[in-house]
Amino acid sequence: MNKIKYSNQSTDYPKGFITNSVNCGLLENRDDLTLIYSVKPAKCAIVLTSNQVKAAPVIWDSEITLDGSDKQAIIANVKTANACTGELGYENTRAMAELVASGLGLDPKEVLVCSTGVIGQQLDMTKIETGILDVNELILNEDSNGMKASKAILTTDTKAKTVSAEFKLDGKTIKIGAMAKGSGMIRPNMATMLSFTTTDCNIEQSVLQEALSRIAQDTYNMISVDGDMSTNDTAIILANGLAGNCPIESLNTENGKIFYEALFNVEKDLAKKIVEDGEGATKFVEVNITQAQNEKEARILARAVAESNLVKTAIFGGDANWGRIISSLGASNAKFDPEKAELKIEDLVIFKNGKPTDYSEEEATKIFKNNEIIINIDCNLGSAKATAWGCDLSYDYVKINGDYRT
Amino acid sequence: MNKIKYSNQSTDYPKGFITNSVNCGLLENRDDLTLIYSVKPAKCAIVLTSNQVKAAPVIWDSEITLDGSDKQAIIANVKTANACTGELGYENTRAMAELVASGLGLDPKEVLVCSTGVIGQQLDMTKIETGILDVNELILNEDSNGMKASKAILTTDTKAKTVSAEFKLDGKTIKIGAMAKGSGMIRPNMATMLSFTTTDCNIEQSVLQEALSRIAQDTYNMISVDGDMSTNDTAIILANGLAGNCPIESLNTENGKIFYEALFNVEKDLAKKIVEDGEGATKFVEVNITQAQNEKEARILARAVAESNLVKTAIFGGDANWGRIISSLGASNAKFDPEKAELKIEDLVIFKNGKPTDYSEEEATKIFKNNEIIINIDCNLGSAKATAWGCDLSYDYVKINGDYRT
Repeated sequence: MNKIKYSNQSTDYPKGFITNSVNCGLLENRDDLTLIYSVKPAKCAIVLTSNQVKAAPVIWDSEITLDGSDKQAIIANVKTANACTGELGYENTRAMAELVASGLGLDPKEVLVCSTGVIGQQLDMTKIETGILDVNELILNEDSNGMKASKAILTTDTKAKTVSAEFKLDGKTIKIGAMAKGSGMIRPNMATMLSFTTTDCNIEQSVLQEALSRIAQDTYNMISVDGDMSTNDTAIILANGLAGNCPIESLNTENGKIFYEALFNVEKDLAKKIVEDGEGATKFVEVNITQAQNEKEARILARAVAESNLVKTAIFGGDANWGRIISSLGASNAKFDPEKAELKIEDLVIFKNGKPTDYSEEEATKIFKNNEIIINIDCNLGSAKATAWGCDLSYDYVKINGDYRT
Repeated sequence: MNKIKYSNQSTDYPKGFITNSVNCGLLENRDDLTLIYSVKPAKCAIVLTSNQVKAAPVIWDSEITLDGSDKQAIIANVKTANACTGELGYENTRAMAELVASGLGLDPKEVLVCSTGVIGQQLDMTKIETGILDVNELILNEDSNGMKASKAILTTDTKAKTVSAEFKLDGKTIKIGAMAKGSGMIRPNMATMLSFTTTDCNIEQSVLQEALSRIAQDTYNMISVDGDMSTNDTAIILANGLAGNCPIESLNTENGKIFYEALFNVEKDLAKKIVEDGEGATKFVEVNITQAQNEKEARILARAVAESNLVKTAIFGGDANWGRIISSLGASNAKFDPEKAELKIEDLVIFKNGKPTDYSEEEATKIFKNNEIIINIDCNLGSAKATAWGCDLSYDYVKINGDYRT
C-alpha cells in the first residue's frame, strides 16, 4: 500500500515553490500581500465563485486560465476585495499581474491575482505597487516563508490554515502544500474563501482540473458558515512537475487515484478548518446523508441541514432540537420522505418510521452539548451519499457581522 | 370609487362568524385553544406549507379540502405542532375534528384543524378534549371574542395580529376579518405561520382559492424571519356569503377586483406584522425588485436579499454594507447583472453601472440606522417586479432560538 503522510506545511513545501509575504501598509502591523511562485511554469487548475457578481481578480483569473495555459505566480492582497469596482478595478488587477510579471520575468498572463476584503472600494495601488516590488525581491532572493504567508492572507480568521501531504509515485517523492483563508466577513463584505495549493507532481492540466473540480464539489462547496456566497471565492492549484514522476494522464490510473486521494484529503482538511474557524463558531457540525435519490440531492439535503439558522442556533444552545433537522430536510428542494428516513445524532436513533423513537432525552441533550456533533440521516430512497460541514450560529456571529463598529 | 376601509378587527367581524378561545391547560395562565365558527357552511380556500414534512393537521386539512367542499369551523391549538407523530398524531387530529363536529352538529370533514408548537410530541388529548367541550359551549351560546382568540393562537409572538376590511358590493356591506400568528420558534421547532381569514362575501370557491393562492405568493411567501420553512404553515379563508351580494364568479369582474384588492391588503398587512414581530427583530426591511427578467426571478431576487444573514446582521448593526446586498443578488439563482443594475437605499443611489456612485457614506449610514429600511434594486433586465419583507438578525434571535433553556 502506498502511504500518504499528512502534515501542516504550506505552499513552499513542494519542490520549486517559493512563497512569501510583506506588509505594504494596507493593514497595520501585519503582512497583507502574498506571492506564491513556481521556479518553472506550472500546470494550473482553478475553481471560481459561481456568484454572478464577480470581483475584478476573478474575471482576470477566469480569462487567463481559459486556455489551460501554464502559470507561475499567484499574488494576493487583503483589505479590499476589488469587487463592484468597474473598469478601474479591472485595470488595477491587471496592473498587479504586470508588476509581478515584470519583476520576475514572466508574462502577465502567467500571474493569477486574488483579492479579499471590502466590496466596492478601489485598491490603494500606491501601497500595492511598493509591496509588489518588495515581495518580488524576496522571491528573487529565494527567501521563502510559507507559514508567514499563510497568516498574511487571513481576514477575520483567527488561525492560519495549512495542510500538506507527501507520498511516492514511480519511486519519486511527491509533495502537496496548501493554505487557505476562510469565510470571515468584514465590512462591508468579506465572505471570501481563498485556497492555494501547490504540488511538484507531474500531471496533465486537464486531469488536474478534473481533480480540483470534483474535489471542490465535495469539500469547499459543502461547507457553510452562513449560507452566503462570495464575489471572490477562489481555489487554485499549481503543479510544476519537478518531482519527476511519469505524468498522470488519468485519475483512473493507479497513480491518478493516489494523487486524487491525497489532494482530496488536503482540500477536505482545509475546508473543515475553514468551518471550525467560522465567525463566532463555537461548535463544529458534520452532516452525513446516506441513501439519497442521487448525488445532487444528497448534497442539497446535507447543505440544507448545515445551513439552517434554526439548526445552527439549536446547536449553539446545546438543545437536542431534532425537529428542526427533519423540518430543514423537508423544506429543501431535494426528495425527502419522513416516513422512510432515519435520523441519528451520533449513534443515537432519534426518529424513524415517521415518528420519534423512545430515545433518551438526557442522552440526546448530552450529545448536543458536545463541541463536535455528527448528524446522520439515512433517506432510504436510493444509494447516493454526501457530507456537509458547518458551525453553530452564535452571539459572536451577530457581533462580528453587525456590531463591529462600536 | 369604491372605498375600502381597513381596521384591526378579528375573525368575528364579518356577519355570521363566531370566534372564541379557552385555556385547556396546555399552557399556563393563557388561552391555548381557539375555535372559529361560521353559522352557515362557508366556501373555503387554503394554502398549506410546501415542506415535504407535513404535520398531521396539514395532512388532514389537505385531504378534506381537496374536493372544494364547504367548511364551517377551524379548531387550533398551540404548544404542540403534531408533526412527526406518526399514525397516532393523525388519529388525534381526526379526533379534534370529530369532537368539534359532534358538539356543533357538523360533519368532521367540515372542521379544519391547525396545530403549532413542538415537533415530535403527541398532543395531550385529555386536556384538548375538555377544552373542545368548553369552547364548543361558548360558540353554541354565541359568545364571541375574536380579539381574545387572536392572542390564544400566538406562540413566541409578542403581539396579537388582526386586520379587517369593509367595503360595498351591489349596495351590500362586505366585511373581511383576519388573525395570524408569526414564525416564532420554540423548542424544538415552532416555525409556524397560521393565518385565518373570514368574510361574509358571496364568492365562488374556485375564485376564492385563486385569490388566496395568488395573494399568498406575494405576501406570506415573501416574508422571511430566518429562511426556514415550517411543517405547519397554513393560511385559510372561509366565506359564508351572508353579506348577500351577487356571487363573485371571476376576479376579473369589477366586484372581483375590489374583493381581491381588499383581501390582498388584509393579507399583506398581516404578513408585514408577522415580520415586524419576528423573533428578536429590531428593524423592518422592505426589498423592492423592479425590471427583473420575469416574476419568478423577481421574487427569488427579493427574497435573496431579505434572507441573507449578512444583510440582516448589517441592518441590525446599522452599517451601510451595501456590498452584501449586491453579493446576495449575484448569489441567487435568478439572473442578475451588476453592470446593468441600480441599487438605491431609500432614494439614495449607491451602486450603478457596475460600481459605487459617489454617494455620501454619512447619509447611507444614517438610513441604515433607521428602524425601517427600504432597499430598491432596479435590475434593468425586463419588466417584472416583486417585494419581500424581512427583519434584522439580532442577538435576541440567537438567544430565543439557542439559549432559552438557561
